[in-house]
Amino acid sequence: MTPAEPARLRVGILQATGVVGDPHHNLAALEKAAHTARSRGVQLLVTPELFVSGYDPVAVADDDGHEQRRSLAGIARAAGLALVASTVDRRHGERFVSASLFDGDGLELTRYHKAHLFGPAEHAVFTPGGERPRVVPLHGVRVALGLCFDVEFPEFTRAVARSGAELLCVPTAVPLRPPADGRPAPFDTRLVPAMVVPTRALESQLFIAYANHAGPGFAGLSCLSDPYGRRVAAGESDEELVVADLDRRTLLDARRDTDYLSSSLSSLI
Amino acid sequence: MTPAEPARLRVGILQATGVVGDPHHNLAALEKAAHTARSRGVQLLVTPELFVSGYDPVAVADDDGHEQRRSLAGIARAAGLALVASTVDRRHGERFVSASLFDGDGLELTRYHKAHLFGPAEHAVFTPGGERPRVVPLHGVRVALGLCFDVEFPEFTRAVARSGAELLCVPTAVPLRPPADGRPAPFDTRLVPAMVVPTRALESQLFIAYANHAGPGFAGLSCLSDPYGRRVAAGESDEELVVADLDRRTLLDARRDTDYLSSSLSSLI
Repeated sequence: MTPAEPARLRVGILQATGVVGDPHHNLAALEKAAHTARSRGVQLLVTPELFVSGYDPVAVADDDGHEQRRSLAGIARAAGLALVASTVDRRHGERFVSASLFDGDGLELTRYHKAHLFGPAEHAVFTPGGERPRVVPLHGVRVALGLCFDVEFPEFTRAVARSGAELLCVPTAVPLRPPADGRPAPFDTRLVPAMVVPTRALESQLFIAYANHAGPGFAGLSCLSDPYGRRVAAGESDEELVVADLDRRTLLDARRDTDYLSSSLSSLI
Repeated sequence: MTPAEPARLRVGILQATGVVGDPHHNLAALEKAAHTARSRGVQLLVTPELFVSGYDPVAVADDDGHEQRRSLAGIARAAGLALVASTVDRRHGERFVSASLFDGDGLELTRYHKAHLFGPAEHAVFTPGGERPRVVPLHGVRVALGLCFDVEFPEFTRAVARSGAELLCVPTAVPLRPPADGRPAPFDTRLVPAMVVPTRALESQLFIAYANHAGPGFAGLSCLSDPYGRRVAAGESDEELVVADLDRRTLLDARRDTDYLSSSLSSLI
């Protein structure tokens, strides 16, 4: 099949919460989810941001992610599916929040460093990535990676789409606000998975697989959004494996129906 | 009051449908709405795209909008409120879809030419505008104008916000799809007012007053969206005057809460 032909891809999105500081537990949970996903025909499983270490910037300050990625490659190979998973990556003394795409043979096809860090806790531990995500083919669909806050910036998704991506996989960790301490917060973070993510998919005419941690501290609402801005499958707040079929023809239809990608007047901006 | 101080502005959004080819009827309806709005304390009334002529690109091909703008200025002056209204503008033999902001003295503070024309019908009659909207102060709030399809492009709203705008007023004409002839259309246009517009307000941290034509042929759902992505007031599908108070403090809070405007890595794009 050439990339120009419509392809179908069954996507799994793992909504779950890793235990902070217990990678062995989290890897076992991820391995189990990978086999369950495979039994449901999933070809690509997307998992939450820093799931293996449990999302906590301080707790992962000493990680370099190397052993975790070796384990993740093994899980992808054993389950026979492609896997997007997020780890810490250390390079030249700097630490990045990263995401990797492994194919069903356990080969790491691409690794991406989060460009938009969120808040003081992440900035204290990590360096923002400085490279646009690469686009790699997977079962006839062109795939790119992003992480959490990245996708809240329209320029990020535009750049990815204009690089040729058709599916953007986004491990994320969006907390629920107001947080448990009851502090009032006008920003309802559930709008990110419920409104911002499908708008990104609509305006940049690609699919987005958005994998969040489960509640109660996180917003959940993991979803696959399509190029018409529909949340074609979505979780609620509990642990869940969301499964949905991506039909590349939908993307071709949407891009023929409305030209959002080339008619923006960049020269005005 | 300096622009740095929080201001409040009562905004009215007229959701109504103009009769095609009957500007006298439509101006009378607009005048009535302006007086009703004023009696409800509205300081700025925003009306739909090409409301005066009735939205129909072919029907307005011979208009130059001059007399209509004179009438609109008179309505603003008589009602004693600021008014955003959309007309055709002819300049050097070219026609533009335009929007004007009149103050309560009937002075035209700015006029904007739609940059993103929609579909073959508009392209056949109009020339796309080539200038970014200007930002003008109104009762302590910095206001800019956009039109319909413009706001579906994230770059447009970003550029307006980065130019200093705090309220973007958008006369629009979003039809309901599937249209009356029953042709299937996967794109549910109601997502534009219901999802895309509040996402624009959230990501670019400004208010958006979005005034659409009423049903049955149009999607309605006119709204005022705030910088937290909330639709603070919204119409449904019928003719309606939506009234909402804009509190500039909300914008200052949102911009302090999350930095969406400066932390996007434009250098990556």
